[in-house]
Amino acid sequence: MKNITTLKDLMTLHLLSLYDAEWRWFQSLKEIAQGVASNELRKIFEADAKKAKAHAHTLEDILEQMEKNKLPKKNAVAHDLIKEMHDLQKDLEDTEVLNAGLIVTQQCMNHYRIAKYGTVASYARLLQMEHIANTLHELMEEEKAADEELSLLAEERINLKAKTNLVI
Amino acid sequence: MKNITTLKDLMTLHLLSLYDAEWRWFQSLKEIAQGVASNELRKIFEADAKKAKAHAHTLEDILEQMEKNKLPKKNAVAHDLIKEMHDLQKDLEDTEVLNAGLIVTQQCMNHYRIAKYGTVASYARLLQMEHIANTLHELMEEEKAADEELSLLAEERINLKAKTNLVI
Repeated sequence: MKNITTLKDLMTLHLLSLYDAEWRWFQSLKEIAQGVASNELRKIFEADAKKAKAHAHTLEDILEQMEKNKLPKKNAVAHDLIKEMHDLQKDLEDTEVLNAGLIVTQQCMNHYRIAKYGTVASYARLLQMEHIANTLHELMEEEKAADEELSLLAEERINLKAKTNLVI
Repeated sequence: MKNITTLKDLMTLHLLSLYDAEWRWFQSLKEIAQGVASNELRKIFEADAKKAKAHAHTLEDILEQMEKNKLPKKNAVAHDLIKEMHDLQKDLEDTEVLNAGLIVTQQCMNHYRIAKYGTVASYARLLQMEHIANTLHELMEEEKAADEELSLLAEERINLKAKTNLVI
C-alpha cells in the first residue's frame, strides 16, 4: 500500500482491489454454481459470474484510461467470502438451507461491491473524470439490481423452502 | 460449520459471526480512532465503536433468548477490514487522503453489516420470532443511519480536502 499520497492513488488502489474481487468472484462462482440444486439460483449465480467478468474487463479499461499498471492487489474480503461459500457447500447437507446460506454470502459480496463502487465513483467525480465516474456509477447500479433480484428470490421462495425443513 | 441442518441453525451461525464482527470492530475501532486527525471523523469512529459494543450485547441477549451457546465463530471479513485500516494508518502519510481511505473501509464494514442484519432479521420473521426480528431490523437501521452520516461527511468535507492534496 506504499506510494499512496493522493486521492487518485487511493482510487487506483480500490480499482485494483475491485478488479481482483471481480476476477476471483467470476472464477469461483462458475464452479460454485455447478453445485447449486435450485435452477433459479444457479441461473442467478451464473449470471453474476458473467457480470463479474464483464466488470473486471470494464475495470481493466478504466485502469488503462488512467494509465495505471494493473498491479496485483489481493482482495481479502472476496477471498474470505468465496471460502465461506465452499465451506457451506461442503458442510451443509440440507439443500434448501444450503441455498439460503449461499444467498447470504452472495449478498454480502454484493453489498461490499456496492459500497466500493459508490466510493470510487464519487472519487472519480471529484477528480473530474466524468466519463469514468459515470461508468463506475453504472457498475454500482448493476450490483444493486442483481442484489434486489436475489432478495426477491430469497424472500419469495428459497427461504420459505428452507423453513419447511425446520426441525427445532 | 457442522451441524447446520435448519434455517434456525443458519441464523445462529450468522448471529455468532455478527457477534464476533461487532466485538472485533468495537475493540479495534477505539484504537484506530485515536490515530484519526479529523475531529469529526474521530467522533464518528468513537460512536461507531460504542455502537458495535452495544450491538454485540444485543446479539448476546438474542442468542440467550434462543438458548444458543455463544460458541466462537471468527468473522474473517471484519478481521480483514480491521487489518486494512491498520495498514492504511501505517502506510498513508497524507492525513487527508488517510481520512478518505479509512472512511471507505468503514463503509465496507457498514454495508456488510447491513446485508447480514437484513438477512437474519428476515430469517427471524420467517421463524416467527417477531420480537427478535424487530430488534435485528433496528440494528440494521442503526447501521444504515451511521453509514449515511459518514457518506455526508465524506462528500461534504473529507474527500474535498483529500482532493486538494492532489499531485497528478
